[in-house]
Amino acid sequence: MTQSMNTTTAIDDDKFHEECGVIGTWNVTDAAAITALGLHALQHRGQEATGIVTHDGVRFHAHKGIGLVGDNYGDTKVMAGLPGTRAVGHNRYATTGATLLRNVQPLFAEFEFGGFAVGHNGNLTNAHTLKRALVKRGCLFQSTTDSEVFVHLIAISLYATVLDRLIDALKQVTGAYSLVALTNDMLIGVRDPLGVRPLILGQTNGADGISPGWVLASESCALEMVGAEFVRDIEPGEIVAIDRSGVRSLKPFSPQKPRFCVFEYIYFARPDSILEGHSVYAARKRIGRELARESPIEADLIVPVPDSGVPAAMGFAEQSGVPFELGIIRNHYVGRTFIEPTDQIRHLGVRLKHSANRAILEGRRVVLVDDSIVRGTTSQKIVEMVRGAGAREVHMRISSPPTTHSCFYGIDTPERGKLLAARNSVAEMAQLIGVDSLAFISMDGLYRALGQPGRDAAAPAFCDACFSGDYPIALTDHAEPRQAQLSLLAELA
Amino acid sequence: MTQSMNTTTAIDDDKFHEECGVIGTWNVTDAAAITALGLHALQHRGQEATGIVTHDGVRFHAHKGIGLVGDNYGDTKVMAGLPGTRAVGHNRYATTGATLLRNVQPLFAEFEFGGFAVGHNGNLTNAHTLKRALVKRGCLFQSTTDSEVFVHLIAISLYATVLDRLIDALKQVTGAYSLVALTNDMLIGVRDPLGVRPLILGQTNGADGISPGWVLASESCALEMVGAEFVRDIEPGEIVAIDRSGVRSLKPFSPQKPRFCVFEYIYFARPDSILEGHSVYAARKRIGRELARESPIEADLIVPVPDSGVPAAMGFAEQSGVPFELGIIRNHYVGRTFIEPTDQIRHLGVRLKHSANRAILEGRRVVLVDDSIVRGTTSQKIVEMVRGAGAREVHMRISSPPTTHSCFYGIDTPERGKLLAARNSVAEMAQLIGVDSLAFISMDGLYRALGQPGRDAAAPAFCDACFSGDYPIALTDHAEPRQAQLSLLAELA
Amino acid sequence: MTQSMNTTTAIDDDKFHEECGVIGTWNVTDAAAITALGLHALQHRGQEATGIVTHDGVRFHAHKGIGLVGDNYGDTKVMAGLPGTRAVGHNRYATTGATLLRNVQPLFAEFEFGGFAVGHNGNLTNAHTLKRALVKRGCLFQSTTDSEVFVHLIAISLYATVLDRLIDALKQVTGAYSLVALTNDMLIGVRDPLGVRPLILGQTNGADGISPGWVLASESCALEMVGAEFVRDIEPGEIVAIDRSGVRSLKPFSPQKPRFCVFEYIYFARPDSILEGHSVYAARKRIGRELARESPIEADLIVPVPDSGVPAAMGFAEQSGVPFELGIIRNHYVGRTFIEPTDQIRHLGVRLKHSANRAILEGRRVVLVDDSIVRGTTSQKIVEMVRGAGAREVHMRISSPPTTHSCFYGIDTPERGKLLAARNSVAEMAQLIGVDSLAFISMDGLYRALGQPGRDAAAPAFCDACFSGDYPIALTDHAEPRQAQLSLLAELA
Amino acid sequence: MTQSMNTTTAIDDDKFHEECGVIGTWNVTDAAAITALGLHALQHRGQEATGIVTHDGVRFHAHKGIGLVGDNYGDTKVMAGLPGTRAVGHNRYATTGATLLRNVQPLFAEFEFGGFAVGHNGNLTNAHTLKRALVKRGCLFQSTTDSEVFVHLIAISLYATVLDRLIDALKQVTGAYSLVALTNDMLIGVRDPLGVRPLILGQTNGADGISPGWVLASESCALEMVGAEFVRDIEPGEIVAIDRSGVRSLKPFSPQKPRFCVFEYIYFARPDSILEGHSVYAARKRIGRELARESPIEADLIVPVPDSGVPAAMGFAEQSGVPFELGIIRNHYVGRTFIEPTDQIRHLGVRLKHSANRAILEGRRVVLVDDSIVRGTTSQKIVEMVRGAGAREVHMRISSPPTTHSCFYGIDTPERGKLLAARNSVAEMAQLIGVDSLAFISMDGLYRALGQPGRDAAAPAFCDACFSGDYPIALTDHAEPRQAQLSLLAELA
Repeated sequence: MTQSMNTTTAIDDDKFHEECGVIGTWNVTDAAAITALGLHALQHRGQEATGIVTHDGVRFHAHKGIGLVGDNYGDTKVMAGLPGTRAVGHNRYATTGATLLRNVQPLFAEFEFGGFAVGHNGNLTNAHTLKRALVKRGCLFQSTTDSEVFVHLIAISLYATVLDRLIDALKQVTGAYSLVALTNDMLIGVRDPLGVRPLILGQTNGADGISPGWVLASESCALEMVGAEFVRDIEPGEIVAIDRSGVRSLKPFSPQKPRFCVFEYIYFARPDSILEGHSVYAARKRIGRELARESPIEADLIVPVPDSGVPAAMGFAEQSGVPFELGIIRNHYVGRTFIEPTDQIRHLGVRLKHSANRAILEGRRVVLVDDSIVRGTTSQKIVEMVRGAGAREVHMRISSPPTTHSCFYGIDTPERGKLLAARNSVAEMAQLIGVDSLAFISMDGLYRALGQPGRDAAAPAFCDACFSGDYPIALTDHAEPRQAQLSLLAELA
Repeated sequence: MTQSMNTTTAIDDDKFHEECGVIGTWNVTDAAAITALGLHALQHRGQEATGIVTHDGVRFHAHKGIGLVGDNYGDTKVMAGLPGTRAVGHNRYATTGATLLRNVQPLFAEFEFGGFAVGHNGNLTNAHTLKRALVKRGCLFQSTTDSEVFVHLIAISLYATVLDRLIDALKQVTGAYSLVALTNDMLIGVRDPLGVRPLILGQTNGADGISPGWVLASESCALEMVGAEFVRDIEPGEIVAIDRSGVRSLKPFSPQKPRFCVFEYIYFARPDSILEGHSVYAARKRIGRELARESPIEADLIVPVPDSGVPAAMGFAEQSGVPFELGIIRNHYVGRTFIEPTDQIRHLGVRLKHSANRAILEGRRVVLVDDSIVRGTTSQKIVEMVRGAGAREVHMRISSPPTTHSCFYGIDTPERGKLLAARNSVAEMAQLIGVDSLAFISMDGLYRALGQPGRDAAAPAFCDACFSGDYPIALTDHAEPRQAQLSLLAELA
Repeated sequence: MTQSMNTTTAIDDDKFHEECGVIGTWNVTDAAAITALGLHALQHRGQEATGIVTHDGVRFHAHKGIGLVGDNYGDTKVMAGLPGTRAVGHNRYATTGATLLRNVQPLFAEFEFGGFAVGHNGNLTNAHTLKRALVKRGCLFQSTTDSEVFVHLIAISLYATVLDRLIDALKQVTGAYSLVALTNDMLIGVRDPLGVRPLILGQTNGADGISPGWVLASESCALEMVGAEFVRDIEPGEIVAIDRSGVRSLKPFSPQKPRFCVFEYIYFARPDSILEGHSVYAARKRIGRELARESPIEADLIVPVPDSGVPAAMGFAEQSGVPFELGIIRNHYVGRTFIEPTDQIRHLGVRLKHSANRAILEGRRVVLVDDSIVRGTTSQKIVEMVRGAGAREVHMRISSPPTTHSCFYGIDTPERGKLLAARNSVAEMAQLIGVDSLAFISMDGLYRALGQPGRDAAAPAFCDACFSGDYPIALTDHAEPRQAQLSLLAELA
Repeated sequence: MTQSMNTTTAIDDDKFHEECGVIGTWNVTDAAAITALGLHALQHRGQEATGIVTHDGVRFHAHKGIGLVGDNYGDTKVMAGLPGTRAVGHNRYATTGATLLRNVQPLFAEFEFGGFAVGHNGNLTNAHTLKRALVKRGCLFQSTTDSEVFVHLIAISLYATVLDRLIDALKQVTGAYSLVALTNDMLIGVRDPLGVRPLILGQTNGADGISPGWVLASESCALEMVGAEFVRDIEPGEIVAIDRSGVRSLKPFSPQKPRFCVFEYIYFARPDSILEGHSVYAARKRIGRELARESPIEADLIVPVPDSGVPAAMGFAEQSGVPFELGIIRNHYVGRTFIEPTDQIRHLGVRLKHSANRAILEGRRVVLVDDSIVRGTTSQKIVEMVRGAGAREVHMRISSPPTTHSCFYGIDTPERGKLLAARNSVAEMAQLIGVDSLAFISMDGLYRALGQPGRDAAAPAFCDACFSGDYPIALTDHAEPRQAQLSLLAELA
């Protein structure tokens, strides 16, 4: 019942770690079960906490909990408490520190005209600025989530219908987001004007036996899980409103060239998802091939850093003809917490998640393939471990350009000062990490692997701000001093 | 992390069961510990949940938890998370059903001008009416407590200072309440204009070693617990504002004749408290004496229904000269839940809280003294138990007039239709309960025992609505249909 | 799942704190529920942990848990897991420190001839000596309870039947004990040869509709709770064996003059119990009268130290004619743990369980009546509190003789060096506690109040070792050095 | 504190599911942390529960808990409670149903000559037979583990020293086991006479700074984790006794041809372990190559069933020249429990652990490579899923011979009647599973891949009973009727 946390840190974290997975269902039998299964398929987008709000035709029902989907919805009492054929669900990313249950989405509000449940994936870049203005007006905030800004903007809008109020609210926010919302009689999906974050639409059997059932989800892998068929990506800037009369599409924003997040392809999305027409798995293999073409190296083995580096390593191996081997084994049973190693043990080289396959590595020239280098500390430890297992040479190839800038659009990257590539040349990085050679894919190579002729600097096809510093959405909050964003309350429970 | 509850029921319950205990401390060393001890002394006013908000000079800190004071503040981590020399604390009454943590007080809000923590004891009689208007205006409610109405009214007030905004809010609410609030630089105590609910002020050593420390509490017994000296009752309609410059008194309401709750003397307050100048214990004994004078009876034993009937039974025995004996033993180890007895066991006469002392009762003429008869079911079971233990005659004397009306001012009474005295004469009640004779103290007798010449029908000295139906504060919400008050959300966690 | 405890301390504690409550049921409908209700009535004999073993005609079923009866058997799943019409149950006394679940009784063993569940109240005085011999023989001990010594002795006995093996075991142990045991086809009750600890037999409706149901319990109050009728006390040294053919009585020991524990009357048993023909409540009142006769004092008020001092204080007041008043209020909501008060707060006079009723005490000459003085620390604090509330004089009268010796027969008394009366005269004790006068009942006075002409030093009617040092059962273990009794294992879970 | 379980089932389960991981450490700084890290590396051998017993030179300390290593030893309080430089640790396999804490190893016993902690991996084939004899002799069993049989045999042995008693015990048991034990002054490791289960010895820095530290573990991967160097496999039938004077080797059994478990290579051991001189990963790749040679197939893709099928699939792809692709994605976030799917959802094809990568599979001829087929239900679902994702042909290749017999030596296989290969020809299995072709590696092929010329039927190099029915150790218990093994007690907690 008691949570130990310091909200201050949490607010700070929230602003930069809003990776999440969302799902909405309409006219499906046992919406809570379908939604929970979809959330399970989206578990990689958030493992910290999860929530589902259903509607049974009369009333909303909610469950929120800390932990995995499978730790929350296996309880038959919980599922029995979530009746109805419509639902919205949310997975929250595991940031360091504990989580206040009141921050777990979907948020729910009772408006004059009825209830409203909303979950979002992404990050508003003017949330604090708007929040300050709303507090001045007398609005009381109960969570530290961006979603609550949406909710207050809808509450005070002068428009009459939910959709008009929502559009009114959307026009005031800036940021990268996908959101799903449930009202008394409507399921709503929204993708931000640039389409930075993904949202897809699927179709399944209808609970009423007449019209189809609908599923909105962050990624297509959720459709496979629940047996729904892929219909299409929601378009950037599109609002879809699903009710008894079917699916309506609204486009209240002036059209812009889309900028889908390139990092979803590189790392974040699940390999079996298809986003904006591309298989994520195939894209990663193509990036690996491109990388091998750009930065070949004579070696005995291509070894992926599991699990995210595997497809790129396979592509690299295929292109280079060097054998692909599982030289690093991942331990999936890490558990909730672990021994804080004493100095003496740390010196022994503790590797809780990865271990070296000595029999494969000993005496070999090894190419490690990974998706990115952020702080560099993990890479350094892995290289040390691989050398410790007897590798003769250790080279590293990275399937993304150097991460030189923080993401403010929903991916968890540390502040710029902590990014290894922000402060060091590739040669310096190689030395710090301890590899014999290091290479990143080029920006043009990355775009080529994704079906573009290269990066069109005037109008790039993707959001690649973390590699280029080219931020397509204004960073309003980021300009203001950090201290002003702190909460007055340090809360225990 | 997960709570199973149906908010609908909860709202309903909340409106009629707002018995609570509050405490505020200012300039005391380790305010959280002092506040927790005070809450422990006030535990009889609420056992469901408890919360403390402290202020350390820079920031607020909060803990809320389900259960007893002693189950929440024994954890050194919890106490270490509550630094500061100022605090407000709250105990919540145990209503049936579970409790949502977000309803546990003190509530906390961040206003434009700083933080604000508030806890209250009592009940607003126009909370729903105000809430509807506030929701219409775009205010979002996160709890189902009356306190949140205060908070929104303060948030949207056009006045500048906290005190002016609080007065603005107080002028819009009607009801019986005592509240304590903590801002960045002030501790505030308020008692409603009629002074229905109690609030007292005490003084202790100051943490700064210069000015005194201050304690506001629902009852004086909290002062004994923390070693503070009683200063005075807060006056009806008075606001006390305590800050670095000392204690200020504000009286923003036009003066009215006070109507302190007579049921605090009869049952609710702790016997060792002194309220409005009367020792609760002595008052109860005097009521017992008056009762013996009004309704004497020839018998062998005076037996209290423990624990609340004990002082009145002692007074009755002293006045009547009939021996006082502990013929009923109370079991204090009831625990959280218990076996739901099957019919067969229920038939055996299960009495988890009380048991008959057969050696004392067998063959005797017994007078049971209790404080009140509400539904009558407990009285009936106790009489059956006493007869089962061999009592020859069983008489009952009640130290309050018949409870014919519900309380809307903060005492947990069932709706009128469930009150035995609302539907039955005393003779009928005697038959239903199964006693050989039954008598209640008269209204005038009760007033006499409390130092009045009798009840002045034109201007009674107390609120006695539960006995008289004379409601001194308008029952605004009560007029509106119940359905409209229901929440749209049935929440699991 | 994890318990934090140091078994070393626990073993030590176990040897001197084996106060407990036991119950056995035979041929009763829903034996688990009846047993749980009986344990609830015996909750005062042990609040630390509880266990029930039932037999459904084919197989045994068990539940053990930490905490109160009401915290363990309210769960319908738990109750559904305990089918059958026969059961044994046990409450364990709350000693300081945590409890290993494996020490919670009833213990269960699978013998060659079937299962055997056993719970006991009391203490074996040669348990360690026997344990050492058993370990030498190859017996493995899994708990630190005396019960397990019984179980091993039965397991290795050369006799054929359970009863013969039990008698064989009983003849090897010395100590004060009552035990209940359940085999595949028999409920067994045993009282030690001197009858130091109580055990009674009751009768109720039989589950089979033909023969009666039977209940064995530590005290008669358990019979009232479950609607059973009192039949008789089990006799000292008696074994009752209850099976399909009815109740058999065995008396394998040579008869001795009984020595029932006098402290059960003074403090330990529940006032509504009848033990060895005496009402505990009436006995306490008589002791109070005798005390008033022996040590009268001029005063304004007789004030009991609640709850155990109440009947003696009533008797004292009746005899002396001085008014009986509740000058000390007991807080029953103490919860699991509490704030460890800092020195500064301790100085404030923390009184979590008791508080002074200032309005009654101020300016008065007060006689406090309590049941015993052990270490003296509680008495000292209470006197200080009563003086702090303004009492003019404080006298103390104790309804037992001075506690000069430790109990080794099942009552939790500290080692002799910590007993105030072991090291100080009554005059010194008065000064240490801070009273104006102090008196204890005399040994003869105590015996008179219990219907004896006085204490017959040659053949006392009771075990009064804690007051007299006259230990009627050999203290075999006590002779050996303490260190040898320590466990080799300090266990976490 | 309460566990819900039926011991009957548990006993049954225990007998056939004794897969586990063990570790022992001697003279290492912070033995509990080193042991916990080693257990983490052995987590794949048991995820149900874990325990560590340490010795601090004077006394033993223990922790046992349900769940993962990382869920138990992250608590600094737990680690602080486990001081010392010597320890034994144990991981327990996750069988269905809950676990009684008292069954969690290492077991601890206090013998006449001191304490003894023991954990084992494997299964005794005469445990029930021995247990029956021991119970007859008066031994009391407290757990349902085979380890306790060892402990009782040691307790009653007539030999004087621990080692002599242990050898005495070992000579009475039959079965496949590795065990580690800790006494007051010695760490002991034992491998069964045929060496069916693995146990290796490693060396590290000594805590005393003089002599080396020693580590015994089920697999060499635990040495990598803690920074220890591999010394050698413990030999079949060898006892190593490590104390202040160093490592002694005892070989009390008459030598036999070893029969190491071939299934450790195929599935159970971690790929980065080296067992009996073979890299597990390399062995699996060689098996895949051999399988491709024996059962080639024209196809577009080789797809492993993750994670265990991956190395064999890589070997198969390399040998066949068909591309290796990750056509099935594994979800590692399954959590504790999950929604029990209703029929309607089950129909949708719920696959919580695996999902098909449609973009890779659609329209292709796919070869699935897996390590074994047990019941066939998982294979059937995976084939259905792969076809549902559009595969044109689905072939299956299995890197073990058909599993036709149950294992009684410590691997969790269902009873024979549930093994698909026990009742069906390969052609029938192909049809049941729904594949276009199915092939298993031949027994000789398997032996060739493991460096043998083929299987020498007269004296096979491995235990392959699950494929051949050639059980090298007598199945004593298996002959007796199952009912006789059931416990008399169905326990809740």
